[in-house]
Amino acid sequence: MTSHNKLSDIPVRVVDSAALDQGTAYGKKPGTYDAFLTEVAPGTPCGEFMRRYWHPVALSSDCTTTPMEVRILGEDLILFRDKQGRPGLLHPRCVHRGTSLLYGKCEDDGIRCCYHGWKFDVQGNCLEQPCEPQGGLKRDAARQPWYPVQDQYGLVWTYMGPPEKKPLLQQYDTFEELDPGEYVDANDMGRSLGGIGKRFISPCNWLQHWENVLDPAHVHILHVAFSGYQLASREERPTRDEPWVFEYVKDGVKETNVSYYDDGRRVDRVFRCRFPTEKRAADPYFRPGRFFVMGFCTPVDDTHVMVFTVSKFKKGEERHVQLNFGGKSWDEMTPAERRAAPGDYESQTGQGPITLHSEERLGTTDRGIVMLRRALRKQIEIVQAGGDPAGVIFDPTQQVIEVEGGNIFTDPQPAPAGN
Amino acid sequence: MTSHNKLSDIPVRVVDSAALDQGTAYGKKPGTYDAFLTEVAPGTPCGEFMRRYWHPVALSSDCTTTPMEVRILGEDLILFRDKQGRPGLLHPRCVHRGTSLLYGKCEDDGIRCCYHGWKFDVQGNCLEQPCEPQGGLKRDAARQPWYPVQDQYGLVWTYMGPPEKKPLLQQYDTFEELDPGEYVDANDMGRSLGGIGKRFISPCNWLQHWENVLDPAHVHILHVAFSGYQLASREERPTRDEPWVFEYVKDGVKETNVSYYDDGRRVDRVFRCRFPTEKRAADPYFRPGRFFVMGFCTPVDDTHVMVFTVSKFKKGEERHVQLNFGGKSWDEMTPAERRAAPGDYESQTGQGPITLHSEERLGTTDRGIVMLRRALRKQIEIVQAGGDPAGVIFDPTQQVIEVEGGNIFTDPQPAPAGN
Amino acid sequence: MTSHNKLSDIPVRVVDSAALDQGTAYGKKPGTYDAFLTEVAPGTPCGEFMRRYWHPVALSSDCTTTPMEVRILGEDLILFRDKQGRPGLLHPRCVHRGTSLLYGKCEDDGIRCCYHGWKFDVQGNCLEQPCEPQGGLKRDAARQPWYPVQDQYGLVWTYMGPPEKKPLLQQYDTFEELDPGEYVDANDMGRSLGGIGKRFISPCNWLQHWENVLDPAHVHILHVAFSGYQLASREERPTRDEPWVFEYVKDGVKETNVSYYDDGRRVDRVFRCRFPTEKRAADPYFRPGRFFVMGFCTPVDDTHVMVFTVSKFKKGEERHVQLNFGGKSWDEMTPAERRAAPGDYESQTGQGPITLHSEERLGTTDRGIVMLRRALRKQIEIVQAGGDPAGVIFDPTQQVIEVEGGNIFTDPQPAPAGN
Repeated sequence: MTSHNKLSDIPVRVVDSAALDQGTAYGKKPGTYDAFLTEVAPGTPCGEFMRRYWHPVALSSDCTTTPMEVRILGEDLILFRDKQGRPGLLHPRCVHRGTSLLYGKCEDDGIRCCYHGWKFDVQGNCLEQPCEPQGGLKRDAARQPWYPVQDQYGLVWTYMGPPEKKPLLQQYDTFEELDPGEYVDANDMGRSLGGIGKRFISPCNWLQHWENVLDPAHVHILHVAFSGYQLASREERPTRDEPWVFEYVKDGVKETNVSYYDDGRRVDRVFRCRFPTEKRAADPYFRPGRFFVMGFCTPVDDTHVMVFTVSKFKKGEERHVQLNFGGKSWDEMTPAERRAAPGDYESQTGQGPITLHSEERLGTTDRGIVMLRRALRKQIEIVQAGGDPAGVIFDPTQQVIEVEGGNIFTDPQPAPAGN
Repeated sequence: MTSHNKLSDIPVRVVDSAALDQGTAYGKKPGTYDAFLTEVAPGTPCGEFMRRYWHPVALSSDCTTTPMEVRILGEDLILFRDKQGRPGLLHPRCVHRGTSLLYGKCEDDGIRCCYHGWKFDVQGNCLEQPCEPQGGLKRDAARQPWYPVQDQYGLVWTYMGPPEKKPLLQQYDTFEELDPGEYVDANDMGRSLGGIGKRFISPCNWLQHWENVLDPAHVHILHVAFSGYQLASREERPTRDEPWVFEYVKDGVKETNVSYYDDGRRVDRVFRCRFPTEKRAADPYFRPGRFFVMGFCTPVDDTHVMVFTVSKFKKGEERHVQLNFGGKSWDEMTPAERRAAPGDYESQTGQGPITLHSEERLGTTDRGIVMLRRALRKQIEIVQAGGDPAGVIFDPTQQVIEVEGGNIFTDPQPAPAGN
Repeated sequence: MTSHNKLSDIPVRVVDSAALDQGTAYGKKPGTYDAFLTEVAPGTPCGEFMRRYWHPVALSSDCTTTPMEVRILGEDLILFRDKQGRPGLLHPRCVHRGTSLLYGKCEDDGIRCCYHGWKFDVQGNCLEQPCEPQGGLKRDAARQPWYPVQDQYGLVWTYMGPPEKKPLLQQYDTFEELDPGEYVDANDMGRSLGGIGKRFISPCNWLQHWENVLDPAHVHILHVAFSGYQLASREERPTRDEPWVFEYVKDGVKETNVSYYDDGRRVDRVFRCRFPTEKRAADPYFRPGRFFVMGFCTPVDDTHVMVFTVSKFKKGEERHVQLNFGGKSWDEMTPAERRAAPGDYESQTGQGPITLHSEERLGTTDRGIVMLRRALRKQIEIVQAGGDPAGVIFDPTQQVIEVEGGNIFTDPQPAPAGN
């Protein structure tokens, strides 16, 4: 007998269907992600939504007279500071013949391209065309594409949207009202992911990082039970929790956790996502008081996110939030150590570049995630319909945002009934 | 005169066509490969054929309580072993929110996802959903996609096809019948390619590796005349060969070589490809006896293949098959050394990720290749027509395969007439 | 109030359009490049134009009996020399079963494939098929695709076009007429880009490199004012320039610069692009005399270019052209040093893999570029129309090209009126 059976010779075989393997991966359909909520390039629904807000792009201290490449919302740009101290954010290709302004030189009033010396100010105006007759008679037509930028809280912020929709750059009361010895400082090293010392870019979609804020279950499992007290120690943590409460607020979604210690102390803790990428998480070490740190998850592109944080410190009493990996920073860990004690970086990038929403099976613990996505979808639809999304500020009297909540402790009292 | 000639000014030139270059590469059409025989992803003709058999995926000793990423037939999977010793092979994305189970922790009865602690057994059943009410009321709906696995001969084998077509995992008489002191051992280091010491993945299509078994000419050229006795030495080799004989057998293609030594000894040697990826090659050092090593070319994806071998050894008398590169292993060679003395790795990957079948000019020495491809095509067509391909075993009385052939020597006798 | 506004609730806001940001990057359309002038693969307009000329592919000294991979006009090829000294350039996949001839062995009369030993001569004729009956009865049908090659001026040149259009390989009078002690030497290390010591491939389209020759403004800005006397020192440079003159010539575009020194000396300098990729630039150190170096920008593929130069030297008085980066070669510089003092490499690759022509704003200083592109377009159209492009030579009496111009000095005389 050879392998050249006739097709008509195929024998019949009886199968006991009760004994068959159930739920195997055979025939599994490929998963898909929700592009509406995740993609940020120009012209995409979420990208246009993002382009209605200011975003931090770099530390102010990194924005110097040495030009720097940045990538924000899928766009490559050159960040620099002229010698008068004004920050500038320009399209990288010189409008003349396209050489990157990365090789440009910063002068008092702008940046000069290396190739033929055209000079542009921080608003892209062409100031000089050295080899052209009379320094360039058509200089005005040679506008270098640019974005407005501002320094605030140690960060450079940009607005990349339609000019007629440019809002005010929001401020926060907690950073505006400083007691003696207090100061505001920013970092971009991804401390909450365990990073340390240098600019940190995480290779996953921005939403995977952002929505994690409203996922209290992962703190109990990932950071405590699984990888072992990466944040608060056993002693710092309360021992009894009321059910988590999630609510829509005008500019995002808010979560409130009420917990009790054995000695009767109660702590009310707030977690909050504010459009488009702001995150506030009650201090994980249960240190009392209002929020003193605020995060911003700037989308680099569809599959990368940067995390900037702004913190209020008291000189000599700096409080950081940093995952604890047995004394190492994330950068110092081996792949095997990261596998053995994963943190936010592993759990978020472990979902893939963009998680496959079609494959999720959300549970009751995912209530915050569900609400955040629903609220985000609504805001994107508002932008699509021509409206202004929640949280953009045009009225100068509204420019300062009140930051309430954090870890608010109250003294021992009778425990509430129920739960 | 400028370069702005008018098109009508083009001069006429007389060409002597007899003097023209013939056969240059100008105008050569791009080549194509035969996807029907080579591609292995889910839903492809060959991929579905492959999914009717068991395949080795890793050494049993590498399948531990530390989860491991494997890629088989174009699918990424997580291999692990629970603390009861049961191997498991699961889809990598946790069915809850998609974090990779690479970061999971193995427990007595399954693996627990790092993010929210859902636990799955080796059949994907969800055992726990810690933060959900009552441990998860809808746990049954949260089945993690899985594939059945079995340990055998030092390897973990999986079946990735339709459950109602799952055959028995084949056994081999030579590995079932062990004399005192004999044992069976597996390796994945690509010894036949010259590799040593670690898991070896070769960057070319599986078929390029497999069909090489039925290509006796390359042994004479590549391994002897060209690169110089990479296998048997001059002394070990017979001096006269009868024409090679190829034949279709029920589960593949078989080649028989009959050769003679100067002293009249005759050796009958068998080479054999059995569906879907099994290969048996008579010991290249002409060591007498039946096959003691069997190979399996597991497709990693369309452009990568792993080679597993199972060998029967006698304790203290281990016989390996390993290309000889002047005392070095392939890993230790420089690129220049590999170029100067190429072996199977270079000749197979040198054909490209998937060889371009449209560009081949097959000769009489390629008879085995032609027959193997023809037989393979037939089996794929049988699967497409709803049948069972050759070599799948459903009858337990047929589970043990008889392994005949190898290097069979016979004493001096008169040389046959003819040839 | 929640984020679930009704779409009909969108408020009206009045915008002061005079105060709006102008010219921002928001809404900027993606740029495009001119494929007609830049792409070189087989069948493309520019690729077919390129295939009407001979191109240098490697140093003759690198073409040895050790086969070498080269990539030219987007085609991967194997360059080798048989033991009789004849250079050969063959399609890499052996016409038999496709293994790369990179692993082949050079013999007296050709190259032998490692896998089954088929041997081909430098014109692709199959000389041997060792395991086939009678050495291969159908050898003639097994022609390995090849291209004609010639050694000249220390380079191996190839013609990759239609055989009936194969021109003569051009010669240059300056290299044909050598005084005692003079010799001709070639290099491929990209000296004009600052490279040194090894084969240099620049990651940008060939045209970005070529057209730079007719861009005198960049010399004044990039190499002098910006990065500081990378070529001639202040003392070597004249102090007054007449306007640059550009003109179409029969086989390309020519630029003439007339300049004066303070002592009245006049220097006439010529820069010239000759189809398809030849470049001549007057010695940048203002050393007097005719061209002694000629460059060829061979397209590797659409996004890579190699620069070959042929120079005439006097023994013991070798004159090189090499960018000066404070005593370092380009290879030795750090990324920060390259950013601070960019040269041709940075300005050309800084335009991207293929510059986006749609985004350019050309000025009067770009006259040479504009003319070169226009002339190139014309020649490509001539090839499309079935004609022979400018500069191809079929008449042996025309094979030697007269190389006039360079840095021609004349003694002090009254400065011309005007300008």
